[in-house]
Amino acid sequence: MSGQDMNGQDFGPKRCGLVGGGVIGAGWAARFVLNGRDAVLYDPSPDARARAEAVLGMARAAWAGLLPGALPPEGRLHIAATLEEALEGADFVQESLPEIQTLKCDVLERIDALLPAAVPIASSTSGLLPTRLQARLRHPERFVVGHPFNPVYLLPLVEICGGARTSEDTKARVAAFYRAIGMQVLHVRKEVDGFIADRLLEALWREGLWLIEEGVATTAELDDAIRYGAGLRWSFMGTFLTYRLAGGDAGMRHFLAQFGPALQLPWTRLVAPELTDALIDRIAGQSDEQAGGMTVRALERLRDEALVKVIRALATVGPQGYAAGATLNRFAARRADDAQGGQPGADGIPASWHGVVPPEWIDYNGHMTEHRYLQVFGEATDHILDAIGAGPDHVAAGQSFYTVETHLRHLGQALCGMAIMVRTRVLDADGKRLHLFHELTAAGDDAPLATAEQMLIHVDTARARSAPIPQAVAGAIAALRTAHSALPVPEGAGRAIAMPRRS
Amino acid sequence: MSGQDMNGQDFGPKRCGLVGGGVIGAGWAARFVLNGRDAVLYDPSPDARARAEAVLGMARAAWAGLLPGALPPEGRLHIAATLEEALEGADFVQESLPEIQTLKCDVLERIDALLPAAVPIASSTSGLLPTRLQARLRHPERFVVGHPFNPVYLLPLVEICGGARTSEDTKARVAAFYRAIGMQVLHVRKEVDGFIADRLLEALWREGLWLIEEGVATTAELDDAIRYGAGLRWSFMGTFLTYRLAGGDAGMRHFLAQFGPALQLPWTRLVAPELTDALIDRIAGQSDEQAGGMTVRALERLRDEALVKVIRALATVGPQGYAAGATLNRFAARRADDAQGGQPGADGIPASWHGVVPPEWIDYNGHMTEHRYLQVFGEATDHILDAIGAGPDHVAAGQSFYTVETHLRHLGQALCGMAIMVRTRVLDADGKRLHLFHELTAAGDDAPLATAEQMLIHVDTARARSAPIPQAVAGAIAALRTAHSALPVPEGAGRAIAMPRRS
Repeated sequence: MSGQDMNGQDFGPKRCGLVGGGVIGAGWAARFVLNGRDAVLYDPSPDARARAEAVLGMARAAWAGLLPGALPPEGRLHIAATLEEALEGADFVQESLPEIQTLKCDVLERIDALLPAAVPIASSTSGLLPTRLQARLRHPERFVVGHPFNPVYLLPLVEICGGARTSEDTKARVAAFYRAIGMQVLHVRKEVDGFIADRLLEALWREGLWLIEEGVATTAELDDAIRYGAGLRWSFMGTFLTYRLAGGDAGMRHFLAQFGPALQLPWTRLVAPELTDALIDRIAGQSDEQAGGMTVRALERLRDEALVKVIRALATVGPQGYAAGATLNRFAARRADDAQGGQPGADGIPASWHGVVPPEWIDYNGHMTEHRYLQVFGEATDHILDAIGAGPDHVAAGQSFYTVETHLRHLGQALCGMAIMVRTRVLDADGKRLHLFHELTAAGDDAPLATAEQMLIHVDTARARSAPIPQAVAGAIAALRTAHSALPVPEGAGRAIAMPRRS
Repeated sequence: MSGQDMNGQDFGPKRCGLVGGGVIGAGWAARFVLNGRDAVLYDPSPDARARAEAVLGMARAAWAGLLPGALPPEGRLHIAATLEEALEGADFVQESLPEIQTLKCDVLERIDALLPAAVPIASSTSGLLPTRLQARLRHPERFVVGHPFNPVYLLPLVEICGGARTSEDTKARVAAFYRAIGMQVLHVRKEVDGFIADRLLEALWREGLWLIEEGVATTAELDDAIRYGAGLRWSFMGTFLTYRLAGGDAGMRHFLAQFGPALQLPWTRLVAPELTDALIDRIAGQSDEQAGGMTVRALERLRDEALVKVIRALATVGPQGYAAGATLNRFAARRADDAQGGQPGADGIPASWHGVVPPEWIDYNGHMTEHRYLQVFGEATDHILDAIGAGPDHVAAGQSFYTVETHLRHLGQALCGMAIMVRTRVLDADGKRLHLFHELTAAGDDAPLATAEQMLIHVDTARARSAPIPQAVAGAIAALRTAHSALPVPEGAGRAIAMPRRS
C-alpha cells in the first residue's frame, strides 16, 4: 500500500478484504467500491450479498448527488464463500464483526496467520481496546482500529486508534488510505474504551434512557430536543466551539466561570438505567410510533437525502467550505484529475464540463429538467472563461462576461446517472462580444442531446456597462477561435425559433 | 394576545417587553423585531444597546438568506431605561436574566406587580423549575418557561414548561405565539431540572470535560468527533431514530438487544470533573488554539452562514422538507399570503410565477445566475400547462409537452431578495406544437429583466414520439391564444442570436 503515490492518482490498496458484512461492513464495502477498489467480503450470513448490494445501491445514489462525476470507475464487489477467499490477494483488510471481544480475537488471529506481514488489518470496533485485540497476533504492528460511523459511505469521520504494539507506519498508511477515500481522520491519542465519539454519544444516550424511564420525554421528544436545536449546530461546530461563542467576546474562560457552577447540580444521570422488559417495551413502542409506519429502508433513503444536502450545503460555507463540506471539497479537488469522461470527441475539442446526472436533476417526465441543461452549459462557459483568463481573478478585478442571449435546443434526453459532457466552440468574437456554441453529449458519444448558442458581452461590473475585452483575453479567444475555425459551422447555430410552416 | 387571528395574518402580541439583554435576550429581541413586533428591552448593562443592535444586524442578514422577502415589515427595537418603561404597554414579556434563582424570583415578582393579569410572562431559564420561579407571583397562572437556544433568531427549538400553577391557556397561547414567529415548540411534560435538551447537552459536555481532564482529547478533537460524524445526522434525525436504523430491519428492539449490554460498561463518568484552575487553563488554552485567531464575531458569522445553509438544505428534503426545514416551510407558507408580488401587469396577463430571489440563486457576478431564470420560466410553463389541462394528470396518463427549443434574452438583473414575477403569452400553436413567450419582471414593474421564447412539442411519452394535442387541451390553448392575440407581438420574439454586424 502506497499511502499516496507521487502522481496523485493512485492511493493505497486495490483489493480490500472485508470480514463481517453487517451495516458497517457493507458500508465500508460500498465506500471502497465507489472509490475504485475491489471489495471482497466474507460474512457467513445468508443475507450478506443482498445487504451489501442494497447498501452499494444506496451509496451509489447518494454519491451521484454528493459529487456527480467525481468518482473513478467502480471497483468490483465480490461476496466470498470463505474467510480465505476474502483475504486472497488483499492488500488491506477491514474487520467489522460483532462487538464480542473473544470472537474478534479469534478471527483476527486467523486473519493474521493468512496474510503477508505487510498487509494492514483495521478493525471497525466501536469500543474494544486495540492492545487487547492485537494481543495474540504474530504481526501486531500492522493492526489498528479504524472506527467509522453509519452510514459509512457518507459520514466522513473515522477514528484511528493504535494499541501498544501498533506501528506509527501502520497508523499513517491507514490514515492516508481513509483520507484518499474521502474520510476525515481523527487520531485517538490515548487508548480508551469507546474512543472519543462513542463516549460522547453514549453519555447523551444514557441520559436519554433515563428521561424515558422517568416519563419526562418520549423517543420522538428526545430527538426533537436535539434536531431542532443543538443538532443543527453540531452538523458543523462541536460543543466546545459553540460554548466559546456562548461566552461572548470573553470566550471559553468566561463561559466556564458562568456555567461551571452548574456542573455541581445533579442534572445528569450518566449511569444508564436498567433495561428492564418494561423499559424495552416502552422504548420500542415509542420508536414505532415515531417512525410513523416508515420502513427502515425508507428512513435510510430520507437520511441519505438529508445527509447529502447538509454536506453539500456545508461545502458552500465560506471560501473553502466548512467542516464536512471542507472535507468534501478537498476530496473533490483530489479527484478532479481522475474523473471519468472528459475525453475529446471526434472533433478534437476537449470537455468544458463533464459529470454524472444526479437524481434531483430529473423532472416529472423522467429526464434531466431543462434548467439543469443551462446550469451545465453555464458551468461550461465558466470553464472557457477561466481558460481565456477571464475567471475569478478577472471578476475580482471588476470585469466580467455577462450572458445576454441563449438559444437552447433539446435533441435527446439525459437520464439519471448518465455520464455526460459538454464541448464548447468559439464561433465568433469582437471587441466586446463572445459567441459560443456548446454541445452536450453522453460521454464517449458524438450525437448531441442538447446544444446551446450563447452571446456574452464583456462588462465593467462597477460601472455596469459594456467594456472592451482586454488584449490578453482577446488573444486567448482568438487562439481558440482559430483552432475551432477549421470545423464546419455547427448545425443549429444562428437559428430563430419558429413554427415549421413559417420556416 | 390572540394566539392566531382568524385572518391568518396577525398572530399574538404587538409589543414585547424584554428583561435581560445578554446573548439570549438580544436574540429574542431580534426574532420579535424581524417578525414585526416592537421589542422594548431593559438591561442595566451599558453594552445592552450595542449588543442588541449587533445581534439584530446578524439576524437580519441571516433571514435575508433564510427566507428572503417572507418576513413582514420590521417592528421597532427600543432600549428602555427602566424596568417600568420596558413593561409599559407590553402584551408579552420574556425574561432572560442570569441563571440565579433568587435574582430571577425578585425581578419576576416586580414584573408580576407591574403588569395586567392577562399578560403572559415567559422565562428563558435553561434549568430552573417554573414552580419555584412562580412561587411568589400574584398571578402565577400566566407564568411559563419558554427556553430557547442560541442563536435564538435562527434555531427553531423552544421548550415550553409550566409550573404547578401555570394555566393550560398560558402554555397554549405562548406556544401559538412562538410558532407564529417560526419556532418549533417542544412541550416538556414533566417539570425537571434542565428540562430535556440541556440535560442531553450537559451529559455530553460533562463527558467531554472528563476526556480533556484525562488527556484523551482536546476541545478541537472533541468537536471533530461530533461534527464529522453524528452531528451531521443530528441536524435532522435524533439519537433514537438514528439507532432504530442501526438496528436494521428489526428496528429499535434489535438495537437494544445488540447494544444494551454495553450500558453495563463503565464508559461514561458519573459526575463532572472538578473545574480546577489547571483544568480551566487547559480548556481555555485549547479553545484559543481551536479558534485559530478568529474573533467571536467572525465565528458567529460563520455559524450563521452554516445554519442558514443547513436549514435551507433540509427544507428541500422530501416533498415537504424535513426537521428544521419542514418548520421553515410551514412558516414560509403562513407568510406567503402576505408576501408581495403576483398582481397582473399593464397588459392584464396574470402572473404565471412569482416569488423572491433567494441567495443561493446569486452567482459570482452578484446577480441571479442564468439557469435560475430558466428554472423560473420552466415553472411558469408548468403553470400554463396546468391551466390548459396538461398538468400532472395528463403526464400520468402518458402524454406530456417537451420543450424542444428556448431562446433566452437577459435585459436586466434580478438581485438577491428581489420580488419577481413572470407573465406568459401563447404566441402560436398547431396540432402538435405550443409556442410560448415569457417575460420576467420585478413585481409591480413592466420592464422585462429577461424573456424566454419556448417551443414545446406534444408527445406520447411511452412511445417517445410526437402526438396530436387532445381536443380539450387544444381548446384551452386556443382560448388563451385568442385572449393574447390582441397584444402586439413581443419585442424579441422570433429572433436568432448573431453578432450585431451581421444583423
